[in-house]
Amino acid sequence: MDKRTELEQLGEFGLIERLNPKRRIINTSTLFGIGDDCAAMTYGDKVTLVSSDCLVEGIHFDMVYTPLRHLGYKAAVSNFSDIYACNGRPAQLLVTLAVSNRYSVEALEELYEGLNLACEKYGVDLVGGDTSSSNGGMFLSLTAMGECDKDKVVRRNGAKVHDLICVSGDLGAAYAGLLVLQREKAVFMANPASQPDLSDYQYIIERHLKPEARKDIVQWLSDNSILPSAMIDVSDGLASEALHICKQSNVGCELYYDKIPVDYETIRTLEEFNIVADTGALNGGEDYELLFTISQSDYEKVKTNKNISVIGHITDQSQGCNLVTPQNTTIELKAQGFNHYKKQ
Amino acid sequence: MDKRTELEQLGEFGLIERLNPKRRIINTSTLFGIGDDCAAMTYGDKVTLVSSDCLVEGIHFDMVYTPLRHLGYKAAVSNFSDIYACNGRPAQLLVTLAVSNRYSVEALEELYEGLNLACEKYGVDLVGGDTSSSNGGMFLSLTAMGECDKDKVVRRNGAKVHDLICVSGDLGAAYAGLLVLQREKAVFMANPASQPDLSDYQYIIERHLKPEARKDIVQWLSDNSILPSAMIDVSDGLASEALHICKQSNVGCELYYDKIPVDYETIRTLEEFNIVADTGALNGGEDYELLFTISQSDYEKVKTNKNISVIGHITDQSQGCNLVTPQNTTIELKAQGFNHYKKQ
Repeated sequence: MDKRTELEQLGEFGLIERLNPKRRIINTSTLFGIGDDCAAMTYGDKVTLVSSDCLVEGIHFDMVYTPLRHLGYKAAVSNFSDIYACNGRPAQLLVTLAVSNRYSVEALEELYEGLNLACEKYGVDLVGGDTSSSNGGMFLSLTAMGECDKDKVVRRNGAKVHDLICVSGDLGAAYAGLLVLQREKAVFMANPASQPDLSDYQYIIERHLKPEARKDIVQWLSDNSILPSAMIDVSDGLASEALHICKQSNVGCELYYDKIPVDYETIRTLEEFNIVADTGALNGGEDYELLFTISQSDYEKVKTNKNISVIGHITDQSQGCNLVTPQNTTIELKAQGFNHYKKQ
Repeated sequence: MDKRTELEQLGEFGLIERLNPKRRIINTSTLFGIGDDCAAMTYGDKVTLVSSDCLVEGIHFDMVYTPLRHLGYKAAVSNFSDIYACNGRPAQLLVTLAVSNRYSVEALEELYEGLNLACEKYGVDLVGGDTSSSNGGMFLSLTAMGECDKDKVVRRNGAKVHDLICVSGDLGAAYAGLLVLQREKAVFMANPASQPDLSDYQYIIERHLKPEARKDIVQWLSDNSILPSAMIDVSDGLASEALHICKQSNVGCELYYDKIPVDYETIRTLEEFNIVADTGALNGGEDYELLFTISQSDYEKVKTNKNISVIGHITDQSQGCNLVTPQNTTIELKAQGFNHYKKQ
């Protein structure tokens, strides 16, 4: 970042041109993208899925420890994750960006490098959006569009009594990574000459700064002819997402504490912060794993996949939503997910 | 607005529920909306159009003179306008909103009243979005989706030499309305007891605060079998939009100063501010009129519609983009549209 171009030198249209060089279109469903009032897509008899997400500086990310390239990557991936959570395949992305002129063009190009990298990796066309200035911090709003066969769309409301509850990967890692970054920021603020040693936290920091969406799980389920009865991505914590599925499916659930998959690095880090690992896994957000329910008849297939854990089952609504501890005690499941509007 | 509910009492999910009561779905293309990770649409063999717009407090609107109901209405309408500009019909809307907790729930409900009113008027389903908090002002990002027959999509790049350049309605009114509101704000700031008399400016203020999209023009063109060769909505000023069409169509143009439609109230108001009416019409933004080019063979049809003015014609690219004054002087057309990133 040697050269610094001021935003005002380019203006809005100049910025759009600079950030969006001629792009190769990946998807045959993309008719056209940037350069018109709309992007245009066509899906034949497929279902079009669309999802919007926003990331706000100081709320969702902190510029002190969030490289812009990672921010762009994460913003795109978290949006794609929503499309996968409906069992779809993301195909197009719109990016809306508001920034003050304290950002240079080069800084925004870094952001777009991250966005483009995610689009390449997941086979998505960046087809448009809007840019504006902001008096405050950076605001990013993304809309992803995807496709799915009509009879394959999975919603949150299809879980049935006796269905098994599954989750991909491991949980709590992104939250643990965030705790470490926040601690190192505090150290840095007290002593700007300090150099953090983060080598013991590589996995969890990567989970926080550069998460991946579970394209592989959606593909594996399809390859193995498993259609989940309900699915959601874990962006606000396992407890919150399980409650969403139960509420919308009019069912209850039992989750087993000791079945919740947590990586060793996550456990060790949460211990440093005096947080019980399960609490971090239940309530920590931004894991972007998939939580889904399947028929018991699919159990034999699922247990062969090491990236999927069966963590509980669906019960009658009258039984409520519960956690079962290793001591066989039952605790009511509650979402302690982040309340954005809470006065800090 | 007697009751004030704090945002933190509701939290994000509570807010989403409060702002999105069970909605009746209008469009058969809407499969499902709020309540899943995605909204889902299906368009058969139609083209899906999608457009994102953002509105930022202090940049696009000023809370001092922008009622939240109007803000919501305008945000939706400006987004629909982009779909009409591609000759489509808006059908779904996603709303992303970031606000600090200085806004009450009731205030946001007012915003949604405006969004819902626009959706009802234009036959659009509000199907999802995202909400977040903000450390700064309010940030609104909207994504509209619409449909269009494959052979009816109109882009910016189809204008041909000798085509006629048309614009709907009248121009510069929203800009004139903004000037009046800014003046009255300055008066109010100096003397908070002052009561503005805006009765002489009703039309232009409404054009600024509560604009409409030209659904009627798109419908009329279709009813009269006119397919524009290029189209764009006038959101950044006529000059800027005409240059977009010319650049993307690789053509030039001649616009006639005295053909540009400007309302009497706009002319009178711009005179108060010592601005030549044509300058205001050429460079004032947010009119949401449609600028389009048609074949000369459609002239007889178009001249019967009082809401459409023929203001010029397309020339060879080598002749450039020009304005012709009443004195028959030719001036190069330049966009003086607003540069968001300019240091004020």
